[in-house]
Amino acid sequence: MGRWEPNARGRLEQAALELFIERGFEQTTVTEIARRAGLTQRTFFRHFADKREVLFWGQGALQELFVSTVASAPDSAAPLDAVAAALEAAGAVLQERHESARQRQAIINANAELRERELIKLAALASAIAGALRQRGVSDPTASLTAEAGIAVFKIAFERWVNGTGQPDLPKVIRESLDELRAVTAGM
Amino acid sequence: MGRWEPNARGRLEQAALELFIERGFEQTTVTEIARRAGLTQRTFFRHFADKREVLFWGQGALQELFVSTVASAPDSAAPLDAVAAALEAAGAVLQERHESARQRQAIINANAELRERELIKLAALASAIAGALRQRGVSDPTASLTAEAGIAVFKIAFERWVNGTGQPDLPKVIRESLDELRAVTAGM
Repeated sequence: MGRWEPNARGRLEQAALELFIERGFEQTTVTEIARRAGLTQRTFFRHFADKREVLFWGQGALQELFVSTVASAPDSAAPLDAVAAALEAAGAVLQERHESARQRQAIINANAELRERELIKLAALASAIAGALRQRGVSDPTASLTAEAGIAVFKIAFERWVNGTGQPDLPKVIRESLDELRAVTAGM
Repeated sequence: MGRWEPNARGRLEQAALELFIERGFEQTTVTEIARRAGLTQRTFFRHFADKREVLFWGQGALQELFVSTVASAPDSAAPLDAVAAALEAAGAVLQERHESARQRQAIINANAELRERELIKLAALASAIAGALRQRGVSDPTASLTAEAGIAVFKIAFERWVNGTGQPDLPKVIRESLDELRAVTAGM
């Protein structure tokens, strides 16, 4: 067993983001990430399955937050209200990490395989939200459509926010994008 | 140069769909597809770059149809009206091919890599639609959001249609899904 390293996960993540930006994702090895963080490869693999997981480990927590927020919306909440609450809750968490979100996005944008992985992540989040809506008794196609529309809003809002300064904050950008979606559909 | 084979492309496509369903996508070779179609491997490669392209060659034509229909919508059309016209035009084309669409979807659903490819295709179609809206003078985030919402509607409507009997027809299912999206956003 290795010795306990203070904040090893955070240090590895920061080292990986720096190296992915400096050298590119493909060109960076786990050995280099561990060295930059002042840790061993073995410590790296205690925290992440591979270098790609450094960029995607947050998906599980995000999905859980979406699902639990949809589940705990008041019974009276309309499907899109429940989804909006979930998107804003996720937005509040991400708001605290604007700088690392910005770095992560630059890395993903520069690599076709990572862009594909990000699309798959968003599709999985939409499926999870649709499932949470069905649990609330929302039937299809409403459940699927609300979930897909919610993820579309999240994707657009996230892009605007991550490419900006971090202000206005992500929950506000999400609310604005939801208003925009309403305007777009009402104006048809 | 090989001799001209009547409807080689269609025969290869039908042979491939049959084999992918019987044996699985991974287990089927180009040699087997050509043999089943009564054609040579060489003829196969004159029509398709690889066996995956048999399932995805239609993406280019679909994208062109989306973009040209958005472009030719009346100046007075709201962004979602223009996108709705594009989705319905594509729906009318696909309606003619319900049986092969159903086979293709079963093959894609059974294979993780193909499901990912399908998501990437949908994301590319959304980008193309957003670009066509910008060409009409629609600014962002409206252009991106309308395109993503449109593709969400298309995805849900297509799933409903392809898993059914082909009736009601796809343009009608698309119109119903757009109405549903409007109801979902208005009810917020």
